Amino acid sequence: MSNVKPIITPEELLKHWQGHRSLTRRVIETFPEEELFQFSIGGMRTFSELTKELLAIAVPGLREIVTGKNIPFNDALQQLTTKAALLNAWDESTGLIDEYWSQIPTEKFREYNNLFGQYNFPIIENIFYFIDNEIHHRGQGYVYLRALGIQPPFFWERDRVIEVE
Amino acid sequence: MSNVKPIITPEELLKHWQGHRSLTRRVIETFPEEELFQFSIGGMRTFSELTKELLAIAVPGLREIVTGKNIPFNDALQQLTTKAALLNAWDESTGLIDEYWSQIPTEKFREYNNLFGQYNFPIIENIFYFIDNEIHHRGQGYVYLRALGIQPPFFWERDRVIEVE
Repeated sequence: MSNVKPIITPEELLKHWQGHRSLTRRVIETFPEEELFQFSIGGMRTFSELTKELLAIAVPGLREIVTGKNIPFNDALQQLTTKAALLNAWDESTGLIDEYWSQIPTEKFREYNNLFGQYNFPIIENIFYFIDNEIHHRGQGYVYLRALGIQPPFFWERDRVIEVE
Repeated sequence: MSNVKPIITPEELLKHWQGHRSLTRRVIETFPEEELFQFSIGGMRTFSELTKELLAIAVPGLREIVTGKNIPFNDALQQLTTKAALLNAWDESTGLIDEYWSQIPTEKFREYNNLFGQYNFPIIENIFYFIDNEIHHRGQGYVYLRALGIQPPFFWERDRVIEVE
């Protein structure tokens, strides 16, 4: 086993996540300003609220993994009341994710982290949770857009690890 | 690098996917029979149609990866006109996924596969596509359920790689 190249490296998994994040950014952009903050279905949260959840997980989660410190969700999230402010926070997170990620040594991904003081799992599972939860909520954003008569971006339209020919 | 344990092994990634599949199965079960086949939002496909897409990707995709043969989507999918038939096909796929997966050697995950004769990417990316596409559509099923006034299963309620304490 140890002579075989791993099925995915940390660098590749980061690219995979950032590729998803570039698509999520496009979904945020596609929402009209008003509907981003007001539209929802069946009593669910608006897409701006779902976006804030994603922001509250990605960088705080990675920071906890790297520093071991559980810093509560940033109150600044409540200040994100425009699409431009949300996109700005998204882009800021993109850089911070790269930065924190580079501080996780490969051997650490299998170690346990008690995420947000509550979910004690191997770090690789923490990270799959970040990615999967984003895909889950973004899929919900697609339904909101369709219900509004707006075509969402194609699901495969993201910055790929390997560029589509 | 080669002395460090990989961040995830093929066996663990399979468990991760099958964990997601167990949650998707629960979502199918949660739909009332009629709405599973008739309800949708904004001109989208019904959740039974989305489920059939997932069935048409998972086993045919893995079979292609293992055998190199691109067998067109099974017409039998069109026969799945009841919830029981869908769940039955789902369970059949669960076993076949385990079976085909065990035939993919670790070193093969980085090789290219021209998925369905169209998407030429490393096999690990084919597989992330299978998983991510399932999470994406299942998230849409959550909105359908909420719109119907039905509480979906918790997102984290799946057979985990590591059991929750």
